Amino acid sequence: MLEDKKVSKTSLSEIGEFGLIEQIKEGFPIRLETSIKGIGDDAAVLDYGNEKTVVSTDMLVEGVNFSWSYMPLRHLGYKAVVTAISDILAMNAIPKQILVSLALSNRFTLEAVDEIYNGMKYACDKYEIDIVGGDTTSSVNGLVINMTALGSAKAEKISYRKGDVKENDLLVLSGDLGAAFLGLQVLEREAQVTKVNPDNQPDLEQYSYLVERQLKPEARLDIVKLLAEMEIVPTAMIDVSDGLSSEVIHLSKENNIGFNIYEEKIPLDPAVIRTAEEFQINPITCALSGGEDFELLFTIKQEDFEKIKANPYLTVIGHATATGAENYLITKGSEQMIPLTAQGWGTGEEESED
Amino acid sequence: MLEDKKVSKTSLSEIGEFGLIEQIKEGFPIRLETSIKGIGDDAAVLDYGNEKTVVSTDMLVEGVNFSWSYMPLRHLGYKAVVTAISDILAMNAIPKQILVSLALSNRFTLEAVDEIYNGMKYACDKYEIDIVGGDTTSSVNGLVINMTALGSAKAEKISYRKGDVKENDLLVLSGDLGAAFLGLQVLEREAQVTKVNPDNQPDLEQYSYLVERQLKPEARLDIVKLLAEMEIVPTAMIDVSDGLSSEVIHLSKENNIGFNIYEEKIPLDPAVIRTAEEFQINPITCALSGGEDFELLFTIKQEDFEKIKANPYLTVIGHATATGAENYLITKGSEQMIPLTAQGWGTGEEESED
Repeated sequence: MLEDKKVSKTSLSEIGEFGLIEQIKEGFPIRLETSIKGIGDDAAVLDYGNEKTVVSTDMLVEGVNFSWSYMPLRHLGYKAVVTAISDILAMNAIPKQILVSLALSNRFTLEAVDEIYNGMKYACDKYEIDIVGGDTTSSVNGLVINMTALGSAKAEKISYRKGDVKENDLLVLSGDLGAAFLGLQVLEREAQVTKVNPDNQPDLEQYSYLVERQLKPEARLDIVKLLAEMEIVPTAMIDVSDGLSSEVIHLSKENNIGFNIYEEKIPLDPAVIRTAEEFQINPITCALSGGEDFELLFTIKQEDFEKIKANPYLTVIGHATATGAENYLITKGSEQMIPLTAQGWGTGEEESED
Repeated sequence: MLEDKKVSKTSLSEIGEFGLIEQIKEGFPIRLETSIKGIGDDAAVLDYGNEKTVVSTDMLVEGVNFSWSYMPLRHLGYKAVVTAISDILAMNAIPKQILVSLALSNRFTLEAVDEIYNGMKYACDKYEIDIVGGDTTSSVNGLVINMTALGSAKAEKISYRKGDVKENDLLVLSGDLGAAFLGLQVLEREAQVTKVNPDNQPDLEQYSYLVERQLKPEARLDIVKLLAEMEIVPTAMIDVSDGLSSEVIHLSKENNIGFNIYEEKIPLDPAVIRTAEEFQINPITCALSGGEDFELLFTIKQEDFEKIKANPYLTVIGHATATGAENYLITKGSEQMIPLTAQGWGTGEEESED
């Protein structure tokens, strides 16, 4: 996944929009039976038979959602796909197709666009999805990517944010948290050093897990498949894109129920604990307020606990308390109950407003 | 549809992203039975039963696809919806839902965003579609809008670009062409005059049809409904977004068949003829190369001619000639056969590359 240093530079005006579309189309033959018609018509045609269609859209803006100073183009393409399909997975649905819109300034070459699509192709292969359409336009400056993802699920399997959460339902999290946020801190620190000293050869080996979680995150298709195998339908579900605290508050508000989460249960990778210390941040704060982990957060009935308890990818981090109750973080040893807030890291604003 | 001069200015950071989403959600309650879940979850859920899902996406970039110097925000919202659903109609499908992504710089106020959504609401009411999702993010400068439209159709009713066009199939166009292009010329001329003389009070009355076609175009839902009533399934179809010439060439290439179109048959409004003369442009060139008319261009079997011949909204402008043949414009009195090219207006580049 490392980016090659290309020497060839083809301006996009040489190949033209239709040439570019043709090239993209060749790189993404459709593979799914549900993709009846893909790139190259006014619209794509999909067949979901008696399943429900699930659809979501996300916009990524250069200088806001990503920066070239640390984000290779191929990783950007990969991450754009992951961002898109994570919302479909958060409905307990299977992602099937994506549509990609790009606005490109004239500093982008064909080779640069190829790199973005190569990353997308890598992700499409991994998650077995088709690119079935998109749009390409110019931008005055910078790059804007918009991703639309479609998926499907049987009606009775879909997990909404506003679900059917009952008192004492368990709050379950996949994977671990805080790594993507710390990966970004590491990359931004190195970018600053490189600005002052262009010969800087960063040794990021000790941060490799964090950097990978930031640059090449994964969407939890495995968890949605696992839940189906275990015959669990979460009573509510959301993906962790803005930090655990914000997502717990979403579930709480939508279901009019409070949650207690336990500090000692929140899964943290050793690299998160070590690096948070280096940056003098509480690692729990990274988990609560750092975004982009793309893990799934969901509630299950008490009686489903037996099915998940031995699973290394799933952790019960808390439970629903009572209708209308507030949300609390219970600190280690049950010493304190701290009310959860949707505050982003440091700025006092919501993370997604940054 | 004229924009009110608002005095109230609410910065978006005051209301926050979640506040903005809440407000948008309240303004767009879902109306269709096929929209099971709309704004406010990780993804929307749609139900198309045994029909096929048709989906398309379009990106509109400030300074590239529109300019504030002539485009009021409410019209921009309206036109964004029309642009999106026109692609669904071009598949002979019925548009049902849209998803809207906005990237906004900090010069936008809540009132400005409201104006955009007011225009979208007006269009959603007119075309009976639901907004079921979207994304809102910051931009470094300028506004970017991405629209994703979904619709549905029975499999046997869908008209593809690459269809089943036979020799002597008739080439049919809805409405008339060239007006949106000339409307843009008029608006840009006035914007230049206003730059030099801010007291300029443009009298656009004689150009009202042209300006309306540019600022508030309509998507031809009526034509798709009409075709269903007439029991016509076009053998191929496309919408005219880049100019007639480019669209004829698309149909030709996809179906490996040539077309002859007749200059005297191309429908032009009297205002197009008059204003083209004023700008010293051939009005046929406006029809061939001017974009954004959002009319439908399609082929039908010879035997369907009886069904459409009396219809004032439909004009037979030519016919398919032979497999592998070139495309020609036959001038008035059959004096000349001019090969069609995809050249945009003036620049020698493809229009959509501008």
